[in-house]
Amino acid sequence: MERYDIAIIGTGPAGLEAAVTAVIRNKKIILLGPEDLSRKLARAHEIRNYLGFPAVSGEELAGAFRGHLDRMGIGITAERVSAVYAMGDYFALQAGEEMIEAATVILATGVVQGKPLPGEEEALGHGVSYCATCDASLVRGKTVAVVAYSAAEESEAAFLSEICPEVLYFPMYAGTPALPENVRIIPEKVTALERPDGKMLVKTEKMDYPVEAVFVLRDAVAPGQLVPGLETEGAHVRVNRRMESSLPGLFACGDITGTPYQYIKAAGEGNIAALSAVSYLDERKRSN
Amino acid sequence: MERYDIAIIGTGPAGLEAAVTAVIRNKKIILLGPEDLSRKLARAHEIRNYLGFPAVSGEELAGAFRGHLDRMGIGITAERVSAVYAMGDYFALQAGEEMIEAATVILATGVVQGKPLPGEEEALGHGVSYCATCDASLVRGKTVAVVAYSAAEESEAAFLSEICPEVLYFPMYAGTPALPENVRIIPEKVTALERPDGKMLVKTEKMDYPVEAVFVLRDAVAPGQLVPGLETEGAHVRVNRRMESSLPGLFACGDITGTPYQYIKAAGEGNIAALSAVSYLDERKRSN
Repeated sequence: MERYDIAIIGTGPAGLEAAVTAVIRNKKIILLGPEDLSRKLARAHEIRNYLGFPAVSGEELAGAFRGHLDRMGIGITAERVSAVYAMGDYFALQAGEEMIEAATVILATGVVQGKPLPGEEEALGHGVSYCATCDASLVRGKTVAVVAYSAAEESEAAFLSEICPEVLYFPMYAGTPALPENVRIIPEKVTALERPDGKMLVKTEKMDYPVEAVFVLRDAVAPGQLVPGLETEGAHVRVNRRMESSLPGLFACGDITGTPYQYIKAAGEGNIAALSAVSYLDERKRSN
Repeated sequence: MERYDIAIIGTGPAGLEAAVTAVIRNKKIILLGPEDLSRKLARAHEIRNYLGFPAVSGEELAGAFRGHLDRMGIGITAERVSAVYAMGDYFALQAGEEMIEAATVILATGVVQGKPLPGEEEALGHGVSYCATCDASLVRGKTVAVVAYSAAEESEAAFLSEICPEVLYFPMYAGTPALPENVRIIPEKVTALERPDGKMLVKTEKMDYPVEAVFVLRDAVAPGQLVPGLETEGAHVRVNRRMESSLPGLFACGDITGTPYQYIKAAGEGNIAALSAVSYLDERKRSN
């Protein structure tokens, strides 16, 4: 299997800057995340403090970032990474149904907005999953619920509708979901998940919905869930000023490392993370 | 005396981003440093990893930064700060012959390139000075030497030539200095400073030059010399991830905090430093 020097997870400013810097340093990278950069950025109001761009919309800034990637020939692999395993001298990333290997990893997945649902963490792996693609084989033929925090999750629900007889879709965002006809859209706010007798119960403000499995789909997964064994501080990865995490070879940058949640701070950290990964690779080469 | 919320020292990417962010947060700031931003930046080769600007010259990037300042109405006070004193609940900055007061300070003066000359540190304050404007009254009527590391120091030498009968100018950079006729330009590399019997001796590869005082003028002054009592690590200020130094209310960002010496890293840290200064000011307001 092809092994990358650096796998960068996340396509916000931190991940993009890390990719740009790593490519300039001649490293073989894979950049994983939503291909449509503007999805996150476009939500931003006018941005006034990204030095060099006096007053831009999120879309304009995303356009400039996209232009930078294009100019350098950097592509995005639009896979959702559901787990990162430290294997000793490399990392294994579960991306969809595929496994990817990389000598180092840069986490730039952003910060999880909001708290887990009551009951969510208790049922994780026992009825609750964060990745439809990964756990498809476990739910084939079953009744499932999707609790979705953004419109980007609609494609996951569409995929599930091909293998599950009944899909209940709870949109936790504004707007009208565009979904296949056999997906039942329930526009009620989910308040908790329960597992009273081996089956799952999705509780809303109005009533309870019994299902066999629940997919909770957010833009970002809590870092401790994404990378088993990683030291975290609440929703954030613990890093030092070199953006080194508690796992050698794994770096983090951007919102996932803590406040302030600002584009230029994220980009600056992406630069540091990439150069730290490069140093790590160089040192390892020397000692081999 | 007018007291600023935040005094920002340095007009590289770190200082500029700090200024932009602080002004957005409605703080009263003074931005001190060379007015000609491109002086530092223009030396840069093509910059390829400032995210959003695929491949720009230092001059083009400086132009974008300048446009950002102009658009926000942020001016630069072109004074060289020679000392920052922690006064308890505020800071006093010696800028030229003027004193400036600020509740907080952000140091973004870059990193001193190269080591001090042999004998330089020993004679500091006893024949060696870093600021012609500040110590003018001490050298009036004397024979002085200027060891200059950039063309920007020529104006300091010109000023000294108005009050000193003899000025010896040692250019430690390439190019032909443009100086008044009564300044004696000595294009020899200075190797050491000595103070054998109360007078100063400038030693070059070729010979020794006796003078009464020596000005060593670099783009940046070592942080420990600039701010008495500040904890440093070699040429760098010790900071945490919030860009807090060992002195409460004093923050640092950019090259002065350590490697990597990169524009986007510096700008990202400027953003953090400004927001940390804002938090510090807010907390102090609440506790008063």
